[in-house]
Amino acid sequence: MSKKAIVLLSGGLDSSTTLYFAKSKGYEVNCLVFDYGQTHKKEISQAKAVAAKAQCPIFVVKISLPWKGSALLDKKISIPKDRALNAKDIPVTYVPARNIIFLSFAASAAEATGASHIFIGANAVDYSGYPDCRPEFIKAYQNMLGLGLKTSVEGKVIKVTTPLIHLTKAAIVKLAVKLKVPLELTWSCYSGGKRPCGVCDSCRLRAQGFAQAHVIDHTV
Amino acid sequence: MSKKAIVLLSGGLDSSTTLYFAKSKGYEVNCLVFDYGQTHKKEISQAKAVAAKAQCPIFVVKISLPWKGSALLDKKISIPKDRALNAKDIPVTYVPARNIIFLSFAASAAEATGASHIFIGANAVDYSGYPDCRPEFIKAYQNMLGLGLKTSVEGKVIKVTTPLIHLTKAAIVKLAVKLKVPLELTWSCYSGGKRPCGVCDSCRLRAQGFAQAHVIDHTV
Repeated sequence: MSKKAIVLLSGGLDSSTTLYFAKSKGYEVNCLVFDYGQTHKKEISQAKAVAAKAQCPIFVVKISLPWKGSALLDKKISIPKDRALNAKDIPVTYVPARNIIFLSFAASAAEATGASHIFIGANAVDYSGYPDCRPEFIKAYQNMLGLGLKTSVEGKVIKVTTPLIHLTKAAIVKLAVKLKVPLELTWSCYSGGKRPCGVCDSCRLRAQGFAQAHVIDHTV
Repeated sequence: MSKKAIVLLSGGLDSSTTLYFAKSKGYEVNCLVFDYGQTHKKEISQAKAVAAKAQCPIFVVKISLPWKGSALLDKKISIPKDRALNAKDIPVTYVPARNIIFLSFAASAAEATGASHIFIGANAVDYSGYPDCRPEFIKAYQNMLGLGLKTSVEGKVIKVTTPLIHLTKAAIVKLAVKLKVPLELTWSCYSGGKRPCGVCDSCRLRAQGFAQAHVIDHTV
């Protein structure tokens, strides 16, 4: 019997690598792509391109967050350009409860499609300090899923898997190269431009990772 | 300083009573109403009517669940008409991860609007056996929220409050009468008709509650 999984795919480096990781482990994957009103809409088309390259079907989930409250949802809030990459505060690009929301849809999709695993590219090393990327959050989410789903009541577990959580960005780039991720299709930039801005947190974390891994980034 | 809350409002008896309960405790309430592709769309207009009567603003959140997997999302699956109300199995009206999804949006809205409380009308007595209505699930959800939100990292807690969880349906009807809930506006039926069908689980649980509370239901 084939193993089924749901992969949360944003079209960025981390989630695309996570998709290829799940595929390399033999999972039959359905990707979940969110159109949540993000100002950087390009990531949606890039996510679709990555999924197509990986020959995986996708669900595009459209959601509205009418309260906004993040630079990624509200053009009036500027994307930071010079924030220290090791800053301990939570930046304005934080979207309230984003991973909590994304994982909840993944749980629904997993249950409806009979998937045993949810893969998420959360990373707690070279990241922007988002609380919903930390291992202790993932563990608590897993515990909650074990009580709230029909599947759980039936004694089956839907496992939340975070293959990148303890990797540096450089290690993720190396893993991506090993797994033949189409890196040139991936999109990490928070700004809404046609080319990556190069100065947002996400662009700079990506550039640092490629540089440290000695890999050339052809997206730039 | 006023206390702010988010109330999950479906327009049914339980969530409408929960809204009036939150108001009676002095909360400044924003209601969250979901348009999730439910076949019983009438509950959305009734939720709006209840919120208007309570003079509370609402956020209408539109979401898609392209995988369906529930009688409430797929007209091809019949709504059960003669299921024992004390049955222990989970019925086909179960929507995969519905409360997990709804609470995740509530958490996002609470954080973005500065609300300290989320009210949900979950009930684990006269209910349909949904796993995401049980106290142990709510407790685990609360624990997860305490780790995944920016608010939590800042040392503030967004509390998930379930005032009805241990009440019988009759006790909820009595509480609704006491709180002056506009019961005639509430809509509990799972079927998509203009009048309540009277035979789905939700209609029968409601009728049983009104009968046991000796209250006449003017919606019927």
